Amino acid sequence: MNGSATRLARNRDIELPKPSLASYGTVAAAFAERRTLREIGARRCGRQVLSNLLYAACGVNRPQGPFGALGLTAASASNSQEIDVYVALEGGAYRFEPGEHVLRHVSSQDVRRHAFNPRQPARAPAAAVELVFVVDVSRLEHTRGFEEPGLHDPEVQKSYYFVDTGIIAANVYLFAGAAGLACWFHNCDRQALARVLDLKASQRVLFAQTVGYPATLPK
Amino acid sequence: MNGSATRLARNRDIELPKPSLASYGTVAAAFAERRTLREIGARRCGRQVLSNLLYAACGVNRPQGPFGALGLTAASASNSQEIDVYVALEGGAYRFEPGEHVLRHVSSQDVRRHAFNPRQPARAPAAAVELVFVVDVSRLEHTRGFEEPGLHDPEVQKSYYFVDTGIIAANVYLFAGAAGLACWFHNCDRQALARVLDLKASQRVLFAQTVGYPATLPK
Repeated sequence: MNGSATRLARNRDIELPKPSLASYGTVAAAFAERRTLREIGARRCGRQVLSNLLYAACGVNRPQGPFGALGLTAASASNSQEIDVYVALEGGAYRFEPGEHVLRHVSSQDVRRHAFNPRQPARAPAAAVELVFVVDVSRLEHTRGFEEPGLHDPEVQKSYYFVDTGIIAANVYLFAGAAGLACWFHNCDRQALARVLDLKASQRVLFAQTVGYPATLPK
Repeated sequence: MNGSATRLARNRDIELPKPSLASYGTVAAAFAERRTLREIGARRCGRQVLSNLLYAACGVNRPQGPFGALGLTAASASNSQEIDVYVALEGGAYRFEPGEHVLRHVSSQDVRRHAFNPRQPARAPAAAVELVFVVDVSRLEHTRGFEEPGLHDPEVQKSYYFVDTGIIAANVYLFAGAAGLACWFHNCDRQALARVLDLKASQRVLFAQTVGYPATLPK
């Protein structure tokens, strides 16, 4: 990209407001309300909720994590932070960048339908935020810290990046429980998403998670 | 086992008190305090803390989850609940049973040293609780609900059971953040643990997570 194209792309990035979870109540309630809820209503998540959600998922909660990298709410193997969360909205798709807490524009298309496996009896609700979990295996192979056993072994890598996906997914589930949002984790159309998200050779699409306001308010 | 042997084993089970997270503060603080902390002090976790920890990890938070099974704080593929959390303490090893909220006795040995990979520069602290994540793949193959694509494909199973391990691990990390406990997730000696935990053919040891009071109190 030349300079002006970069500036143009930057203009389509979404600057997230500073996250605040102050209004979300107790951790006891978050665990009590954790559940899978697939019925998403028509209300859209605003930027503040999106900011809070992504902070909870894998945002920066301290300047120094293990091995000199940023500290995130989500643990990862050797703090390699190898999972990127892509965010598919009606107006486009973005990569969440925890360090700057911004959504970096990657597509102007609505790619949310690809967040579902065509073989599954589900589709993207109109108001849903679709989170897409993408691993960059090169980050596992080039950590700054302690070399976990087998970081260069594809089978071991698999165990790490799926665990690290689950860690982010659980953060999202607990956040949703606390915030009164509906949420479920599911398979996706990996091939289609890899095409539309403009991935590097070292990146692979893994799973997706739907978040939104529930169709009916929880009791 | 004959009847009296069963009763004997039952006597060594640990009945956990009713869990309560009421004293653990806000969900905002849990996410803010989420981190890996490897320095465990000398104070042991009592039964109430153990009960609270295991409820947060994958305890029952509602009588009806998806597909007619119990609802747990941890999501799992088709709610198959295929991950068992084994708990290794100084006095023995146990399998956590969410439905009854008890620790079922499996060994009278202190097996905590096996919760670490012999190649890693770490060892079990004297006061640590070691959680050991064990998958039972037969539960993925016999879910009560919707058949997720590929539940009988070993590669797909792997993606599910590692994600589901990460989901429990994140719950433990957030609980630890909220409760002021130290916690880290790590590799383990899978062969040694499979031997001492008396596993079935369909069970496999995956990872371990250490929890305890921190060596120095968090600021």
